Amino acid sequence: MSSDAPNQPKPEEDGVNVDATQSKKAAKKEAAKQQKRAAAAAAAAVTAISLDAPDPLAAHYGDIPLEDLQSKSVTGREWTEVGSLAEGLEGRTVLVRGRAQTVRAVSKKMAFLIVREKGFTVQCVLSVSPDVVSLGMVKFTTGLSRESYVDVEGTVSVPNSPIKGASQQVEIQVRKVYCISKAVPALPINIEDAARSELEIDKALQAGEQLVRVNQDTRLNFRVLDLRTPSNQGIFRVQCQVENIFRQFLLSEGFVGIHTPKLIAGSSEGGSAVFRLDYKGQPACLAQSPQLHKQMAICGDFGRVFEVGPVFRAEDSFTHRHLCEFTGLDVEMEIKEHYSEVMDIVDRLFVELFDRLNERCQKELEAIGKQYPFEPLKYLRKTLRLTFQEGVQLLKEAGIEIDPLGDLNTESERKLGQLVLEKYGTEFYILHHYPLAVRPFYTMPCSDDPTYSNSFDVFIRGEEIISGAQRVHLPDFLATRAEACGIDVKTISTYVDSFRYGAPPHGGFGVGLERVVMLFCALNNIRKTSLFPRDPLRIAP
Amino acid sequence: MSSDAPNQPKPEEDGVNVDATQSKKAAKKEAAKQQKRAAAAAAAAVTAISLDAPDPLAAHYGDIPLEDLQSKSVTGREWTEVGSLAEGLEGRTVLVRGRAQTVRAVSKKMAFLIVREKGFTVQCVLSVSPDVVSLGMVKFTTGLSRESYVDVEGTVSVPNSPIKGASQQVEIQVRKVYCISKAVPALPINIEDAARSELEIDKALQAGEQLVRVNQDTRLNFRVLDLRTPSNQGIFRVQCQVENIFRQFLLSEGFVGIHTPKLIAGSSEGGSAVFRLDYKGQPACLAQSPQLHKQMAICGDFGRVFEVGPVFRAEDSFTHRHLCEFTGLDVEMEIKEHYSEVMDIVDRLFVELFDRLNERCQKELEAIGKQYPFEPLKYLRKTLRLTFQEGVQLLKEAGIEIDPLGDLNTESERKLGQLVLEKYGTEFYILHHYPLAVRPFYTMPCSDDPTYSNSFDVFIRGEEIISGAQRVHLPDFLATRAEACGIDVKTISTYVDSFRYGAPPHGGFGVGLERVVMLFCALNNIRKTSLFPRDPLRIAP
Repeated sequence: MSSDAPNQPKPEEDGVNVDATQSKKAAKKEAAKQQKRAAAAAAAAVTAISLDAPDPLAAHYGDIPLEDLQSKSVTGREWTEVGSLAEGLEGRTVLVRGRAQTVRAVSKKMAFLIVREKGFTVQCVLSVSPDVVSLGMVKFTTGLSRESYVDVEGTVSVPNSPIKGASQQVEIQVRKVYCISKAVPALPINIEDAARSELEIDKALQAGEQLVRVNQDTRLNFRVLDLRTPSNQGIFRVQCQVENIFRQFLLSEGFVGIHTPKLIAGSSEGGSAVFRLDYKGQPACLAQSPQLHKQMAICGDFGRVFEVGPVFRAEDSFTHRHLCEFTGLDVEMEIKEHYSEVMDIVDRLFVELFDRLNERCQKELEAIGKQYPFEPLKYLRKTLRLTFQEGVQLLKEAGIEIDPLGDLNTESERKLGQLVLEKYGTEFYILHHYPLAVRPFYTMPCSDDPTYSNSFDVFIRGEEIISGAQRVHLPDFLATRAEACGIDVKTISTYVDSFRYGAPPHGGFGVGLERVVMLFCALNNIRKTSLFPRDPLRIAP
Repeated sequence: MSSDAPNQPKPEEDGVNVDATQSKKAAKKEAAKQQKRAAAAAAAAVTAISLDAPDPLAAHYGDIPLEDLQSKSVTGREWTEVGSLAEGLEGRTVLVRGRAQTVRAVSKKMAFLIVREKGFTVQCVLSVSPDVVSLGMVKFTTGLSRESYVDVEGTVSVPNSPIKGASQQVEIQVRKVYCISKAVPALPINIEDAARSELEIDKALQAGEQLVRVNQDTRLNFRVLDLRTPSNQGIFRVQCQVENIFRQFLLSEGFVGIHTPKLIAGSSEGGSAVFRLDYKGQPACLAQSPQLHKQMAICGDFGRVFEVGPVFRAEDSFTHRHLCEFTGLDVEMEIKEHYSEVMDIVDRLFVELFDRLNERCQKELEAIGKQYPFEPLKYLRKTLRLTFQEGVQLLKEAGIEIDPLGDLNTESERKLGQLVLEKYGTEFYILHHYPLAVRPFYTMPCSDDPTYSNSFDVFIRGEEIISGAQRVHLPDFLATRAEACGIDVKTISTYVDSFRYGAPPHGGFGVGLERVVMLFCALNNIRKTSLFPRDPLRIAP
């Protein structure tokens, strides 16, 4: 850690002003001092362990000093992923890196260490033996705090009986163990507690044992710990696949992926639920959806577009399915004749999505289901389409009267979901031909009855997940509709004007990524499918 | 357009309150009225044309009334894409939809109409002939305003000589032509003007002809028109592919795509260039990068993550390469030993990206090059890596002295790019081992000399495009570094605390999507590669 590196030019060699050089010198000194302090602390930790007795194996365990973690060298060593450890590797020496999930001392001479990497776990065995494992090594290992990062080297062995406490059915007979980064000794959440299902807690309670239940807020306060559970590892890998399948399907259908601005003048769709801010002295707000700009991209001749990006809603919604910031999956496309062309895309896109998820994400869905049991989604090869009136009729036949020109509330959505499941055997369906009055101003009215509109909602497990429609593409009609809905046309003039230079008939839809994952896996709260959720009370971590 | 649709329940049949029903009735009446007005206007337009003389072919041309564009019916007709029109279709009847790019009347009896769809164009011929084309049809067509949306039906023919004014080398002998949506007669920008290269303008000037040059601001004010040029159609399709290749490469390397919040408490990396806002009574700001949260995802055990999303910078930068909102491509990954592991990913990712772009986007790159000529990017199969000191030395040898512990300014970046190109034959290279003082607080210092850091920048055509580094993963050292850089640790406590529960060595990098496209195509302004750019003076359209 010398500060006299040979290829470092001397200050006097360059032409910068003296002040800058001096301040850099000071910064350099300070950085060197900090580093020495950190290295000394690390060295002290190693010493503390080996003080008991001079251990000839002392170099085989201990805390790795900071400087060895600063890209000091490339050794060419290879690490094996915990998830890939299997019987085929029996007898081989492997090096794994992961977290010390649990450490159990059987005696002074023997200990078990469970190492976890990306949700997979392996049991590592330390058993005192001359020239291989020392008492000091066992002591060091049993002193590791949970969740610390470790490197473990050893030989793969296959035990006679199945290993209950780890996902991999081999063990590592440890020869070296090093700590890379220490976790604080008292964790605010234990991963086992966070990974436990309600069923386990209830069963234990019946057997007289009170297990820890980690509540939602605590999880979110310590999200980096909570995210380490197998179910969360699964949820966000599924989410990544949802987006990936969405994109690949649309690209294969000739859609262009775009990015529209989130900073806009005025409010994106009217209404008061916008986050306002000052934009270089101009009033601005965060886009509540890419609606206006994705339509403008259609006016810009891209034909078919999609966007994946954040959507901001300043609503005071404290429900299980609303967030102040979520990831919108948006689609907009020219239509030739009918908004059914948009519903055709929804139909094929989602059937493809569900098929691929079930196929590619088996492990992840299993991990999620273990903590949050759910039945696989029931869906048809060809998605069911009902008109809004047919939906109203179904509810009526079941004794539920709703306003035929109003909207469905959460309760009637759920009830209709049940009725549709009973009658048609699907938990995924499209309801279309909605009353115009309950749709946004840019929705195209029906040609045969302007009380209704060329619009649709899509439901999964009785909850609305998609909203879509044909849009008004004629500027004067659009302005009239905006006014009729109480929107000041001046605030959306760049949008309305976009249609004055010729615009094709078009339509589209929007989906919330977090909702897709939540409802596909029948999770009970959208906060479970947002990496760092934002709601009216939460803006951290 | 009756308001007595049979399956529409009567208001008295349901249990809603009278007020709601009445307001809906009123809304329904109003909507019906609006629609009638729009239909009447459309009908009037048709009438105006056919008034001259009763035309037996009147049904074969005219403006399509609104109601026929409201998803009235599905006829089963098929539209052919303009881009797919070729000699193989000779003699076939086709229906195309696109924009009336130009209309030229040869006589009262003959006219040419160029129809454009997604940048492709076809010449449509109208020639008066009994029972096929009437004088009225020619008159209607020559009266179409530019950029109006039209449906054209006719027979594909192959002319004897090449067609200069259109991309497709076949013609359509028109039998039917309808206008779907009219553009205003006086467009603020003509597409031919917007699509013209500087070279064409200069050449014309030498020949004594003054052609219209559309300046950048006018383009952006009327972006939906500007986006229709072949070069812009190309730019945003290339951009979509950049993102797609980026994602597919990383997914294949085991990265997980994530979405981190854009609304955060405090400022994401310190500094004053943040957009501030009120978040439900709490002070908040827009993320200047996903830096902190992508590192937290690493602490959450995702191993390797990437994110594509908006990045907000409130800087007063009026340069050719800064925007207030752009699309960040971010990567973060565990490293085993050395930050070269991160540079390895950069290397392979970008070589793959350039290869695939050249392979898949030939047409698009050609369209861009026609308006903005550029040389294909020169890059090596294995990306060149120079240390910062080597860069300083190269500049010194060329007579340029720069601060060896400072940063490169735009001018020295460009100069170094030239020197590297001359010496190594590449316009894409990595410069690493930067002085610590010019890097953010979370950058890991070098083990051998804390004046330097485990960091790198990447350059394309002499401009910085990527910044990356190993990060400090030890919380106390991180807090010390933040303080040393003048950052109030309290404001980033959730971030620093994330490392207290064990954290692996890790590193990553960030790229601007718009910059990649700009520099790959050697464009001179980042506003050309942002769909709806945001700079200190622009928040619309």
